[in-house]
Amino acid sequence: MNVRPERLDAAIAFAEELAEAARSVTRHYFRTPVAVDSKADESPVTVADRETEARLRELIARQFPDHGVIGEEHGSERPDAEFVWVLDPIDGTKAFITGNPLFGTLIALTRAGRSVLGVIDMPILGERWIGAEGRATELVDTAGRREVRSRTCPTLDAAVLQTTHPEMFAGQDAERFARLSRQVRMTRFGGDCFSYAQLAGGFIDLVVEAGLQPYDFMALLPVIEGSGGRATDWNGQALTLESGGHMLAAGDPALIAATSRYLKSS
Amino acid sequence: MNVRPERLDAAIAFAEELAEAARSVTRHYFRTPVAVDSKADESPVTVADRETEARLRELIARQFPDHGVIGEEHGSERPDAEFVWVLDPIDGTKAFITGNPLFGTLIALTRAGRSVLGVIDMPILGERWIGAEGRATELVDTAGRREVRSRTCPTLDAAVLQTTHPEMFAGQDAERFARLSRQVRMTRFGGDCFSYAQLAGGFIDLVVEAGLQPYDFMALLPVIEGSGGRATDWNGQALTLESGGHMLAAGDPALIAATSRYLKSS
Repeated sequence: MNVRPERLDAAIAFAEELAEAARSVTRHYFRTPVAVDSKADESPVTVADRETEARLRELIARQFPDHGVIGEEHGSERPDAEFVWVLDPIDGTKAFITGNPLFGTLIALTRAGRSVLGVIDMPILGERWIGAEGRATELVDTAGRREVRSRTCPTLDAAVLQTTHPEMFAGQDAERFARLSRQVRMTRFGGDCFSYAQLAGGFIDLVVEAGLQPYDFMALLPVIEGSGGRATDWNGQALTLESGGHMLAAGDPALIAATSRYLKSS
Repeated sequence: MNVRPERLDAAIAFAEELAEAARSVTRHYFRTPVAVDSKADESPVTVADRETEARLRELIARQFPDHGVIGEEHGSERPDAEFVWVLDPIDGTKAFITGNPLFGTLIALTRAGRSVLGVIDMPILGERWIGAEGRATELVDTAGRREVRSRTCPTLDAAVLQTTHPEMFAGQDAERFARLSRQVRMTRFGGDCFSYAQLAGGFIDLVVEAGLQPYDFMALLPVIEGSGGRATDWNGQALTLESGGHMLAAGDPALIAATSRYLKSS
């Protein structure tokens, strides 16, 4: 069921074109007064989110008219197609609207519900993190293109844990996260998708989040796995398009079981 | 007691030379394995911190041998001199050691204990925020040099509040911060010195922190004030070298009183 290498090469090149197109929109709007409104879930959305996603959909429709698209802002088209692009035009909208460069564009290509390709593009930092099935994750920036590796971290008490915001966790989730947080060396907040880039680059060890949507995590999986790390739900199970949005990523796969002990529901 | 304009010009130019020198050291070490150890207060310190500060002290001693220096890593020399440089080579060491570019170098020049000049330099972002008494704060980056302004925000319920980490606050401080946090539109974590640049740039409205040392805040004051904002302690009083490390910064000075109501001790 793997995608043929030459087809994957073409998909990677096209995903980079998408990331480049997204950059030109997000960079144009960053730190300018943008109209912000709120969605039903109270998360802010800007014209920059909407315009970026519309631009990506246009490019996909022209290049791969039979592919599906699932996006944060404009819903689903052909979600049952063999190949589906999963898009989050601005992951970290709160960072974006507060002049903070740690927001990113997430682009995934899924086949039969599984991510075969993922890009975390950081438009202001100029960093592009690219993962694809069976390949080493690459970082592309002004210094060039090179493979990256997550780092080993055999025990929880040596681990640096990161998550976007303490209020990401409701009810029992908050208690579970707090329990885990007491076991690690250091807990850091902030980052959105950038946390997973830090993990793939070998700078932190764990990212634990909740309430994620498929467009938040599908692009992250190949980046994490191609760096040598592993991502699961809080019970240590594989993440799919149907997963509940609880994510646990470890740079060292050996940490998954030890971390899940503090997070799992049973 | 103001510094003569031509003397201030020279001091600004020299502070920029210092920032440039610091950049070359911090950029060299960023995302490389750096030796990390812990100080008495458990904050991590790296060879990059020590080497950066040593370089700045060398340059100051050569240019202004009669000036004093207070630095985070190498202590005080001539702290009673008329002019004293106050240095934090890497503000946000935890960001630095986790591959996160939101750390900065802080450089202040004080006269008789009052900051007359402050620089927040963000080496990886390539942003330099410069404040000096009686002048508008400037941002220097690849797009050039221009004046920045904080934004108006007349009421707390419209304000975006930022602080480095929820665990920055102990005991009653945590309760006070939580009380304030419930009044604002949005609370964001992360940033260290970059929060104050976001405030000076008009992207957020309030920064509230505790446990700061003079080298953490002396450089911030001219940047905030030159942008139209205001910084005080939690009781709304002026910050000096002797202040207790509780800081409240507002982009709109009208917010100080309303914010201090929730933070003050009496």
